[in-house]
Amino acid sequence: MVVMGLAKIAVILEDWFEDVECTEPAAAFKEAGHDLVLVGLQAGKVVSGKRHTVQATIERSLEMASVDEFDALLIPGGYSPDRLRAHDVAVRFVKEFIDSGKPVFSICHAPQLLITADVLRDRKVTGYTSIIQDIKNAGAEFIDAEVVVDGNLVSSRNPGDIPVFIRESLRLLDEGG
Amino acid sequence: MVVMGLAKIAVILEDWFEDVECTEPAAAFKEAGHDLVLVGLQAGKVVSGKRHTVQATIERSLEMASVDEFDALLIPGGYSPDRLRAHDVAVRFVKEFIDSGKPVFSICHAPQLLITADVLRDRKVTGYTSIIQDIKNAGAEFIDAEVVVDGNLVSSRNPGDIPVFIRESLRLLDEGG
Repeated sequence: MVVMGLAKIAVILEDWFEDVECTEPAAAFKEAGHDLVLVGLQAGKVVSGKRHTVQATIERSLEMASVDEFDALLIPGGYSPDRLRAHDVAVRFVKEFIDSGKPVFSICHAPQLLITADVLRDRKVTGYTSIIQDIKNAGAEFIDAEVVVDGNLVSSRNPGDIPVFIRESLRLLDEGG
Repeated sequence: MVVMGLAKIAVILEDWFEDVECTEPAAAFKEAGHDLVLVGLQAGKVVSGKRHTVQATIERSLEMASVDEFDALLIPGGYSPDRLRAHDVAVRFVKEFIDSGKPVFSICHAPQLLITADVLRDRKVTGYTSIIQDIKNAGAEFIDAEVVVDGNLVSSRNPGDIPVFIRESLRLLDEGG
């Protein structure tokens, strides 16, 4: 019998995230027994979803966070990725995560952070309609599918894809990343 | 004596535009005697700034608008350009405008629309911090300056640049575009 260790998942968040792209994967990951830690620009900051249905408090500042502490990274979409990527500390954290080979879960506008981190070259990825050209210009192969798994990178397009996004993310975690 | 004709300027707008990047250039253009027409996805739709300080009613749908009717285009920033570029009709309108050689005024996130329209290759342009990598990946030369004028394209970075953005936009209009 193999007893899988539970994963500690960083959720990177700033104001105007797409509410359900944070809450639904987070609920499913917790339900599966994993731990979540909200990381952001400032510990203690209360961030709000763009639909104003959810607020969350940042638990660890990116300044004080290390990729070594975590087993996986969830990047919810909305306008949170655009706000985060204006800050080098967020871009560096995401780049180190991708480079570490640990699972990264990207949905909707999340590839914007991956583009600024310059980690999409020759990767297969999907994302929100409005950023298709940016994804292609970053050297990635854009795939119009509800979920795309390329190595440690799981990506989906929009809130409608959340169920399969969660399914493939959990599968990667179960495989030990 | 040369009597300059007044310009008819299209302002392309969707929800969550950066309030002052619409209101301040619009006020200055009107003050200089130019006419403004708000174009968007649907005539009659009321769109709101992301700061909730201003609402505006779309006067002409992009479906019914032609570049021939206008002398210049203003693209306010915020998240309006991201929302617009998910729609082909908006991307086509912006592309035709750039291709026409008529003045296009781009501020903050506005280059997102220009990127999806694929009209930035080999152009000198500036824009908001978060989209610098997207601008470079689109083949443009990113310049970190409060205003950049390259042919018919005037661009600025953020609300702090509005005064020089207005000055250079008016200068191009006065030169007859």
